[in-house]
Amino acid sequence: MTYARRFAVLSCLTLSFACFALVATADEGMWTFDNFPAKQVQQKFGWAPDKPWLDRVQAAAVRLTGGCSASFVSPDGLVLTNHHCVATCVQNLSTASQDYIANGFVTQNREEERLCPGQQAEVVTSITDVTPRVQTAIGKKTGAELAKARDAETAAIETESCTDKEKERCQVVTLYGGGQYKLYRYRKYSDVRLVWAPEQQAAFFGGDPDNFNFPRYNLDAAFLRVYENGKPASTPQFLKWNPRAPQAGEPTFVVGNPGSTQRLFTEAQFDFRRDNYFPVLVPLASEYRGRLLAEMDDDAEKTRTGNDRLHSVENSYKVFIGQWQALRDDEFRGRLTKAERDLRAKVKGNAEIGDPWTEIEKAVASFSTYFTEYFILEERPGWRTDLYMYARELVRSAIERDKQPADRLPAYAESRLPLLEKQITDEKPTYPWLEEMTMAFWLSKTRELLTADDPRVKDLLGKDSPEQLAKSVVAGTKLADANVRKELWNGGLKAVQASQDPMIQFALAVEKHARPLLDRYRAEYDGPATVAQAKLAKARFAAFGESVYPDATFSLRISYGAVEGWKERGKDVPFATNFTGLFERATGAFPYDLAAKIAAAEDKIDKSTTYNFVTTNDIIGGNSGSPVIARDGSVLGAAFDGNIHSLGGAYGFDQRMNRTIVVSSAAVQEALEKIYIAPALIKELNDTPITKP
Amino acid sequence: MTYARRFAVLSCLTLSFACFALVATADEGMWTFDNFPAKQVQQKFGWAPDKPWLDRVQAAAVRLTGGCSASFVSPDGLVLTNHHCVATCVQNLSTASQDYIANGFVTQNREEERLCPGQQAEVVTSITDVTPRVQTAIGKKTGAELAKARDAETAAIETESCTDKEKERCQVVTLYGGGQYKLYRYRKYSDVRLVWAPEQQAAFFGGDPDNFNFPRYNLDAAFLRVYENGKPASTPQFLKWNPRAPQAGEPTFVVGNPGSTQRLFTEAQFDFRRDNYFPVLVPLASEYRGRLLAEMDDDAEKTRTGNDRLHSVENSYKVFIGQWQALRDDEFRGRLTKAERDLRAKVKGNAEIGDPWTEIEKAVASFSTYFTEYFILEERPGWRTDLYMYARELVRSAIERDKQPADRLPAYAESRLPLLEKQITDEKPTYPWLEEMTMAFWLSKTRELLTADDPRVKDLLGKDSPEQLAKSVVAGTKLADANVRKELWNGGLKAVQASQDPMIQFALAVEKHARPLLDRYRAEYDGPATVAQAKLAKARFAAFGESVYPDATFSLRISYGAVEGWKERGKDVPFATNFTGLFERATGAFPYDLAAKIAAAEDKIDKSTTYNFVTTNDIIGGNSGSPVIARDGSVLGAAFDGNIHSLGGAYGFDQRMNRTIVVSSAAVQEALEKIYIAPALIKELNDTPITKP
Repeated sequence: MTYARRFAVLSCLTLSFACFALVATADEGMWTFDNFPAKQVQQKFGWAPDKPWLDRVQAAAVRLTGGCSASFVSPDGLVLTNHHCVATCVQNLSTASQDYIANGFVTQNREEERLCPGQQAEVVTSITDVTPRVQTAIGKKTGAELAKARDAETAAIETESCTDKEKERCQVVTLYGGGQYKLYRYRKYSDVRLVWAPEQQAAFFGGDPDNFNFPRYNLDAAFLRVYENGKPASTPQFLKWNPRAPQAGEPTFVVGNPGSTQRLFTEAQFDFRRDNYFPVLVPLASEYRGRLLAEMDDDAEKTRTGNDRLHSVENSYKVFIGQWQALRDDEFRGRLTKAERDLRAKVKGNAEIGDPWTEIEKAVASFSTYFTEYFILEERPGWRTDLYMYARELVRSAIERDKQPADRLPAYAESRLPLLEKQITDEKPTYPWLEEMTMAFWLSKTRELLTADDPRVKDLLGKDSPEQLAKSVVAGTKLADANVRKELWNGGLKAVQASQDPMIQFALAVEKHARPLLDRYRAEYDGPATVAQAKLAKARFAAFGESVYPDATFSLRISYGAVEGWKERGKDVPFATNFTGLFERATGAFPYDLAAKIAAAEDKIDKSTTYNFVTTNDIIGGNSGSPVIARDGSVLGAAFDGNIHSLGGAYGFDQRMNRTIVVSSAAVQEALEKIYIAPALIKELNDTPITKP
Repeated sequence: MTYARRFAVLSCLTLSFACFALVATADEGMWTFDNFPAKQVQQKFGWAPDKPWLDRVQAAAVRLTGGCSASFVSPDGLVLTNHHCVATCVQNLSTASQDYIANGFVTQNREEERLCPGQQAEVVTSITDVTPRVQTAIGKKTGAELAKARDAETAAIETESCTDKEKERCQVVTLYGGGQYKLYRYRKYSDVRLVWAPEQQAAFFGGDPDNFNFPRYNLDAAFLRVYENGKPASTPQFLKWNPRAPQAGEPTFVVGNPGSTQRLFTEAQFDFRRDNYFPVLVPLASEYRGRLLAEMDDDAEKTRTGNDRLHSVENSYKVFIGQWQALRDDEFRGRLTKAERDLRAKVKGNAEIGDPWTEIEKAVASFSTYFTEYFILEERPGWRTDLYMYARELVRSAIERDKQPADRLPAYAESRLPLLEKQITDEKPTYPWLEEMTMAFWLSKTRELLTADDPRVKDLLGKDSPEQLAKSVVAGTKLADANVRKELWNGGLKAVQASQDPMIQFALAVEKHARPLLDRYRAEYDGPATVAQAKLAKARFAAFGESVYPDATFSLRISYGAVEGWKERGKDVPFATNFTGLFERATGAFPYDLAAKIAAAEDKIDKSTTYNFVTTNDIIGGNSGSPVIARDGSVLGAAFDGNIHSLGGAYGFDQRMNRTIVVSSAAVQEALEKIYIAPALIKELNDTPITKP
């Protein structure tokens, strides 16, 4: 239901289901809380967090189901995150006459706080090792049988472990490519309300051209609040607000949920991404972006309603380009190649490990032959437009819920249904023009990629053109109405199959063609890759011992680093910007025009206040909104981006160049005081005294 | 001034200036008329064309300066080509009230024939070897000096050799990568008029989805007429019109001007295309296509005026995708790699040849470091939109014409100026919305690729956004007026520099930033590559003797082949379609809706008439409109496309799969008789009796 968002979980293709053990160098690593690299940190800073420090931080760390991270910053459920993590909510709450994206959303008291549709906040309460149980279930199975056994056992563990469906969520996280399975138990909050969001032009000054760049001047911060029984939840474990300037070299810890990395893909998998995946994905994303830009151009209402989609599209696009470039860079790629060669050499002759590289190569080669079909029909059906995704999820969840739990696809395990139901049935606006153009785009690309003579294309289009079909299903569907969706959800498979809704009927037709591709993928790629990747994990543990961290999986991690600039083409990039720089960079022309409220407050603002700053922490999409924590456990700001070099971080970390970009607590404080005038919020944030570092 | 058109000269990047000697297998080869492979043809068919046959055909072969091929088919200057080769002309002659693209253009007599703006037709009258002269001028020079000496000598030869500027054009063609330089002398016709064009929906039924596919049902044919002194030119050397069905296996000869192939690029050059060139070009082309589609959607006038651009963009896009896929295909690429390895082995130790592969690798590596800048500022400035290209050519030609002939860039040699002047100063419509959106696109991509902080971007944009600047230069320029362009052309550098026209001023600013990149390219890539490629040509001659043909250079070639289908995924694709198939494929929804005139004539049409057919001839973009000639020298149709496999033909020919797609003379005859009712044209075409084969 949700789109890949800036620094949200980037859709890295299901190839990357599994993960690997990674050997960390320098500040590298997105560490699990139960394997914190205390030795390395001690070595670097002469000090390291202890268990109570880590426990306190873990209890204050929040995951947002839209694909972001966040943290509690008051005992009353107040949550700090990024503006771009709440932009969908801000847009959903807006109307043509009250546009909070353009004007910002400021509350003076709790009564004014408003529910964010589909949003859920989650806090880890425990982590348990369930590896033996899952591995026993897998046994010696292979292919589709293996995937099924693994998913069934995982689902069973999740269902057994979380009995309070209102307040709990259980998730088995696959780490080290199946080397470990861990049960993460979460306290969940389904009532999440918007407290404060600046104008988007304040949060995203410089827009797409400045995205992933630095120096930067973005007030990319926002506050939410979690509620319980209609009242602000009590959150005694929170991080202290610290609106001071960060100091050069001081230690920083980023706590959040990095979405997905593929740092220990094999050569075959890297090649696949470079030569198959991106060459199909990027041109499509590019054309969609072009269509969207042209549709929105000179149309104020489309500009308003398409805003959220456009940002998501442009952000993803830049991520794709950056990742792809890294894989085409000889030096960068050479390091990856060398790492594989080294590992192979170290475990040569180890019979238990064998040759997982060739196993993966074969699985990739087979996947390549039907990748395009899989991509367009299964991975990006309807180009994930809202109404289509409602239909697709209603259809697929109905089919899966009709099966025994052990037979279901993992995304429809009993433990996953409550969030899915919430995402499908929460009320939120849809925009017919956007739905129609997106569907028309996807249909025309489906025809282009599969050809007009493909029987599936003929079945889906019939005698219609993509444009005609898009128009008729969007005009005819009632799925924009949350009540209709609720009825279908509750009615299950019978209701779905009997539905006369044209979008549901269309989604049923697509399902018919997509399902064989998914089955094939699970049997021929996912199964073999799971076996091979578990062997690779073993190989890495054998070669490197404990000094490894798993690939990112949108589960809770901590990374350490320091406030530090870098050298760009021989020139030093200073570690921080301030408000003076913002006013200097403003040209008046979008996206370099100042937000109205900032422009109006120019004389009041202390322009020497630190605005954004960078650190060496190792993060990735999904970390957006993560608290950046000082040694004393206080919040110096919220991570909202990486620099352009960080995009290659999906595949490898380069400490010389990769930087995390942070909006400082100092800038947020200055904004709340001088620009947005939110005294209650300032009081709440600053009520607890700060321990100086 | 002209855009890459379907099967027109595809813009293959200036990397491909030079060409290579190719070793032909089977029906492979785009042969020069002075090295016709009579032996191979004799072997295949037990017969081969003799000198008089070749001379007759050469004299009837026409090159269209828009990037197409054609042939005389009557003694009165009547020219057969493709609809898509005249589509720009048809569009230029159309207005909102009289849309010849939608309705077709049919004349009943010569008075109704109308001038095509910017069009020139050319016929080769002689080919002379000038290799010794050019090689003497080059001597031992290197880098920029080499490029300059070569271009100066070439320009001098052209200027000396064609003294009648009204009727003649001289062009020195570089063959075999500088292994040969040949002077082609042309009789030129500057007054070219449109005689007949069907509706575009007849010519391009199936549109983009069916483009490069087969079975196919396209009436992609048109007639032009060349005039002299206001009267139809006398063209006694013409090809006989032959409206019969082609026979399975019969020999076919395609005569035309294949635009550009890169079949003997080195590995470094192939890698560059795969990893640098297409990954930059394709996403940009894709976004532009998306913007254009969205702008035209639901807007009848934009759909009309943007039609020509959209077709050109979509066609190029499919070509890029096809070429790129070929380079990413392991098997296809493996053949290229093997060919290089074999050649290296054969000439190993030959001191005269040395190691040109490494020389090219170095030149490519250097080019890679500034390729993106070069591409956006020099190779695709203004995304080649009409008004910007007027400005750019007025600016650059003024600068170059101000120099001594020996110092000019080759595109501005004295011999090239008449056509350039015609293209700049001929009257033709421009569409402000299209100009503005294209400029805005290019400016925003320039900022994206170079970053907002690049000094050149800052200089070009100032405080404007791309959209603001595009709007102001397009609204402010007077270059849409041909008289203004004429004045500037005549006024030369002084007039250009003094011009207050915002588009001229903007083009001057771009020139300032583009020129250093061009200079660098000529010195560091073009110069070294010319030396290395001449060595590679020597290597190939040494290894393979005479059985080689040069890469395509949009100069006259002949290829031989036969009428023959192919096997696609185990299934036979028959070699021809007929009108029955057209009516069966029509769905009524664009682009599968029938042209109105065809639908209206359904009952009259003999549906068994051959519509399109395929042959094994080796062709490439630029061959569009080429006559497909039977053994007796008559015209069986006009080549208008290749199948999807032919797109890899840029890099290698695969006779099992590559096919030329032809619109049959039989279909054209049927259409003129039953659908478009053009008795005078039928009479003119059929007046000369046909010799049966």
